Amino acid sequence: MLIHVVNPNTTQAMTDKIAAAAKAVANQGAEIFATQPEMGPVSIEGYYDEAFSVPGMLARIAEAEKRGVAGHIIACFDDTGLDAARSLASAPVIGIGEAAFHAASLVAGKFSVITTLGRSIPAIEHNLVRYGLSARCAKVRASEVAVLSLEDPKSDARSKISAEIELAKTHDRAEAIVLGCAGMADLARALSDQHELPVIDGVAAAVGLIEMLYRMNIKTSKRGGYASPLPKVYSGTFAGFAPKK
Amino acid sequence: MLIHVVNPNTTQAMTDKIAAAAKAVANQGAEIFATQPEMGPVSIEGYYDEAFSVPGMLARIAEAEKRGVAGHIIACFDDTGLDAARSLASAPVIGIGEAAFHAASLVAGKFSVITTLGRSIPAIEHNLVRYGLSARCAKVRASEVAVLSLEDPKSDARSKISAEIELAKTHDRAEAIVLGCAGMADLARALSDQHELPVIDGVAAAVGLIEMLYRMNIKTSKRGGYASPLPKVYSGTFAGFAPKK
Amino acid sequence: MLIHVVNPNTTQAMTDKIAAAAKAVANQGAEIFATQPEMGPVSIEGYYDEAFSVPGMLARIAEAEKRGVAGHIIACFDDTGLDAARSLASAPVIGIGEAAFHAASLVAGKFSVITTLGRSIPAIEHNLVRYGLSARCAKVRASEVAVLSLEDPKSDARSKISAEIELAKTHDRAEAIVLGCAGMADLARALSDQHELPVIDGVAAAVGLIEMLYRMNIKTSKRGGYASPLPKVYSGTFAGFAPKK
Amino acid sequence: MLIHVVNPNTTQAMTDKIAAAAKAVANQGAEIFATQPEMGPVSIEGYYDEAFSVPGMLARIAEAEKRGVAGHIIACFDDTGLDAARSLASAPVIGIGEAAFHAASLVAGKFSVITTLGRSIPAIEHNLVRYGLSARCAKVRASEVAVLSLEDPKSDARSKISAEIELAKTHDRAEAIVLGCAGMADLARALSDQHELPVIDGVAAAVGLIEMLYRMNIKTSKRGGYASPLPKVYSGTFAGFAPKK
Amino acid sequence: MLIHVVNPNTTQAMTDKIAAAAKAVANQGAEIFATQPEMGPVSIEGYYDEAFSVPGMLARIAEAEKRGVAGHIIACFDDTGLDAARSLASAPVIGIGEAAFHAASLVAGKFSVITTLGRSIPAIEHNLVRYGLSARCAKVRASEVAVLSLEDPKSDARSKISAEIELAKTHDRAEAIVLGCAGMADLARALSDQHELPVIDGVAAAVGLIEMLYRMNIKTSKRGGYASPLPKVYSGTFAGFAPKK
Amino acid sequence: MLIHVVNPNTTQAMTDKIAAAAKAVANQGAEIFATQPEMGPVSIEGYYDEAFSVPGMLARIAEAEKRGVAGHIIACFDDTGLDAARSLASAPVIGIGEAAFHAASLVAGKFSVITTLGRSIPAIEHNLVRYGLSARCAKVRASEVAVLSLEDPKSDARSKISAEIELAKTHDRAEAIVLGCAGMADLARALSDQHELPVIDGVAAAVGLIEMLYRMNIKTSKRGGYASPLPKVYSGTFAGFAPKK
Repeated sequence: MLIHVVNPNTTQAMTDKIAAAAKAVANQGAEIFATQPEMGPVSIEGYYDEAFSVPGMLARIAEAEKRGVAGHIIACFDDTGLDAARSLASAPVIGIGEAAFHAASLVAGKFSVITTLGRSIPAIEHNLVRYGLSARCAKVRASEVAVLSLEDPKSDARSKISAEIELAKTHDRAEAIVLGCAGMADLARALSDQHELPVIDGVAAAVGLIEMLYRMNIKTSKRGGYASPLPKVYSGTFAGFAPKK
Repeated sequence: MLIHVVNPNTTQAMTDKIAAAAKAVANQGAEIFATQPEMGPVSIEGYYDEAFSVPGMLARIAEAEKRGVAGHIIACFDDTGLDAARSLASAPVIGIGEAAFHAASLVAGKFSVITTLGRSIPAIEHNLVRYGLSARCAKVRASEVAVLSLEDPKSDARSKISAEIELAKTHDRAEAIVLGCAGMADLARALSDQHELPVIDGVAAAVGLIEMLYRMNIKTSKRGGYASPLPKVYSGTFAGFAPKK
Repeated sequence: MLIHVVNPNTTQAMTDKIAAAAKAVANQGAEIFATQPEMGPVSIEGYYDEAFSVPGMLARIAEAEKRGVAGHIIACFDDTGLDAARSLASAPVIGIGEAAFHAASLVAGKFSVITTLGRSIPAIEHNLVRYGLSARCAKVRASEVAVLSLEDPKSDARSKISAEIELAKTHDRAEAIVLGCAGMADLARALSDQHELPVIDGVAAAVGLIEMLYRMNIKTSKRGGYASPLPKVYSGTFAGFAPKK
Repeated sequence: MLIHVVNPNTTQAMTDKIAAAAKAVANQGAEIFATQPEMGPVSIEGYYDEAFSVPGMLARIAEAEKRGVAGHIIACFDDTGLDAARSLASAPVIGIGEAAFHAASLVAGKFSVITTLGRSIPAIEHNLVRYGLSARCAKVRASEVAVLSLEDPKSDARSKISAEIELAKTHDRAEAIVLGCAGMADLARALSDQHELPVIDGVAAAVGLIEMLYRMNIKTSKRGGYASPLPKVYSGTFAGFAPKK
Repeated sequence: MLIHVVNPNTTQAMTDKIAAAAKAVANQGAEIFATQPEMGPVSIEGYYDEAFSVPGMLARIAEAEKRGVAGHIIACFDDTGLDAARSLASAPVIGIGEAAFHAASLVAGKFSVITTLGRSIPAIEHNLVRYGLSARCAKVRASEVAVLSLEDPKSDARSKISAEIELAKTHDRAEAIVLGCAGMADLARALSDQHELPVIDGVAAAVGLIEMLYRMNIKTSKRGGYASPLPKVYSGTFAGFAPKK
Repeated sequence: MLIHVVNPNTTQAMTDKIAAAAKAVANQGAEIFATQPEMGPVSIEGYYDEAFSVPGMLARIAEAEKRGVAGHIIACFDDTGLDAARSLASAPVIGIGEAAFHAASLVAGKFSVITTLGRSIPAIEHNLVRYGLSARCAKVRASEVAVLSLEDPKSDARSKISAEIELAKTHDRAEAIVLGCAGMADLARALSDQHELPVIDGVAAAVGLIEMLYRMNIKTSKRGGYASPLPKVYSGTFAGFAPKK
């Protein structure tokens, strides 16, 4: 059982951290391999960055499909390109944002999300609405820590995130916390111990969900929105990505 | 890793079928054991039956807690007594209804549910609203097959369920199907092959979710609605169930 | 015209207070009688207590049915066991929580609820969502007064509740207040005078609603979710509760 | 205890029928008196008719206030002018549409509404959304019977309404029916017997709700949207309606 | 291309200000003319004032129809009488409230509304719910500036409104501001410059929307709720308003 | 005043048709110019095609920005890349899907959408939910006409679309129709005449909205989700798209 984790940005340190988080929770029978796109942004902080991370990420998913993976994990909390990936792949695809929301819904009435920058809040709120889980989210909060600062051991990232968790407990009556960035995966355990409530990292949740679907023998439905792309001509740079019969 | 599956009704044949469904998907490291209450109804078809299944089910959960389980699965599609069980247990608790809804949301835009009797539809719709996932459910349909008829090999249960799936595909534009009764667990694979879309059994999904939470080291939050019961006096028949310090 | 008020917990002082509140608003032609279960918790503070209050409460409802009552009132703000009671009874059943929400909706655009402990907030929020009235509720607030402290004349319960009402007026723009516990029934009038806005006690509202339904000759629909329980075997302690033809 | 029922249109036969329906359910201690405006349309079938029925209706409410009524009932299913009437009156005001929706919510999971003309459906749907009860309404259906045809004993109004009830039972899974016009008040009992489910007339429900509020000593909140009109100049025809200090 | 702007209150200074705001944004080919009713209140601050502004406003709309206008704009932020006007007119009708909400939705994820008095908040919230746009509105705020104080150059209206905008930016994470009164039309530009985010005046937005519909050759649908009034008798003062064949 | 219309697919015939539709409604002072990407799919039918149309489209938007446009119109009904475009551009950006939904909301209570293939329905429903306008949409229907068949004069596209409009009128009680593909722009007028209700083409609506925003001097808010992209490194093929200070 092979699980593909794709980090949609091009920062190797983050890919490594994500791979470690995934391997830490995977079952013995599961092998994790992590990739990152050749082209695109070094971090994803807003809709524009998202747009340029998707083609390179889909290339990685197409390659991984050939290896017969049990599933793909998109390791960006915005679930960048999730719908396109589901259309492309025959194996199931899970975004770490949705994985975290579903996991939190199973252990708490309401959860709050702590993300990086305020500009990322609307995209997360949109996803919650689309997934149907916005009623379970008390609030999306920003720690105002930039994505790449999470890779800097000297930054005060953890204390800023911790301060928002405290506010979520008292002001939002949050019963659980969702960490809103793949780069926070290594903080979940310590923050959970410190604050005495579930602190959820979407990378770990997504690994569990892929394993669940694999053992249930359930794949993405190809009826409706996730139907395989229709064969057609693609022009220019993207000619090689054109769907074939 | 020990997983407790409790069938909230007192029909042994159904407990056996549920145990088999759970074992079929569990990982090597997981041991499943299934129980049923000593007291209560032989099947759960409506709110009244639910009320009398909960105390006996909670007794089973209390006993299983002592065995140090990784989690509990409530194997009735109404998720009978789920909130009370979460308050009681230290290990996480998953209802097969919610498990199925979450699993379906990961592989399809919209799903339809096929349950047993029409009288069960409102309870399922209530749960979908509470979980926040009603926007993902196209329709809850009844096959008008009684719960215990599912245990009767001569009944036409499968053909009735299959007919509703056909309607769900054409009328509801459902991309996946959720089977709305634990007693249908053995039909999922065949119906999925026949109809060429994901057909989801909540027992299997719940096993996967317990394994996910276990490996993430995440348990039910004790802040808010699922706080441990306060110590107090219980009278009469239920004196032994009184929460203690 | 006979109205049955059942206090789902086993505290006689609370049953007495509830009976007094009901009698104070009943019409001349209406006779009130109040009961409490033989078995179950002394107070209901969370989902676990709820589960053990329902069987004993249903026993009281079954007995009252034989007396030919005009209706039953469940005098716990969580509307404990309401759905099961509606399935069982031929007379209509009203929970004091829903009664209060409906009454408040008739005299105010938005209301806030002041309940006892924070752990009770999620259950009340769930009910508001299920009844469809969550859009009318500005906020559910906790006074952090335990249920049985309301029976203690030396507690500072009233001042804590009053402080939350003040916050509801200024922060929530609440136009009316709903008292979120049957044990607060005796405070409604004084708090309404003090704060100059409607303060609603669900016990009084429920009496009015039962009288309304009685004079309209309207009973619970037996189509759908509230259909009478199907005859079947119940095991063990609950054998005597088994529905019969 | 004096209850004012105002029929917002100028058709005396309808006012008489409404008064009879109200008197049939009122308690012994309650005296009903019914009025209709001097100016405005003979029936209300759409937003334009509504606009011209409100000033004359408010005049009747202002007059009734002087008689010290316990409450006002607006006997048009669109709840025409309800918000303005609540701002004006010191006694509570109930619309028969909202009264029927609340009553139906107490005896059924979901209800369908049968109104007169298709053009009235959007206004009723708007009200359901505003009251927060749209989730409880399965469907608003039109019988395509004009309002004044309900006053014609030779019309086939009842059979058309009955046919829609049949569809509501089978297609909408409606557990109760709300009659969507004051002019249908005399049909509720017979249709309920024929179809074996609750059929609700809003006039009767509104009488019960006014009695409930009266005995609870609860009036419309004057905080927020229903604050008394501010004193100011009104010009021309409406000069006499100007709010005074 | 002739555009009719009707101020539903009788204050000439406000009509003039509204006309100026409309003319400032109209295209060269568009001619604006502004009217106000002969009868009704000098300002609209609540539901009661609304009721008495509508008949006189509909008279102005009927007159303007004869001039062959491209569309009508109702220049009160409550969108007073919008539904009745749409039923009456053959040209499209736009309320400045809805115009502003739609415009804000095109340039911001979420907006906050700053209105005059707190008592106006519920009516605005009702409209947002009915239009379906409440999810786009972060909060409706009151500046506690009375409508006619906006016409007083010595009032501190602007500073109060500005203070609420500041709160909307920090507390609501509002990305745009909607000014919630026609009398604030002249402040939009300066407040936008000061606060560096879009500040939207509904009068200007409504002019643009009428021009859009005119050039698209799209008028109000006469199917459903906005069907032309049915011919019938109107009594008394309103006899002249009776719809004719 | 210069308006940029970008067709996100690479089919010149469709770009020409869209340009003609835009020019037909633009004011005299407005100059329209239409572009299409150099790279990407010949038509957009699902999420995968969307992903590969966005980078090329954003390149066109960046070029148009240099020409000082009043606004950009994304002429694909899925509003492909709308959020990224808004982050990138200083001029406002309107998608033709959202434009059509807003326009329909101004002339009808409820509308139905007629799109091309069934696989496009979920994406349109997602957008309606995100924009907050799903409550205004009765149903999204598919004509099962492929996008490029709309360019084939011999196809039976119009009759298939017309048949769905008929169903929308009778089954959905739709009061207006939204055409769910840019390639249907030339059919709006004839279908509106034939069916006697508003039939809305999003290209025309978007032109009107850009003109409205231009004259109001309102641009996309740069607070929150649409903040300008942060300067950072982009790798490989997309290096040239990296945001700069």
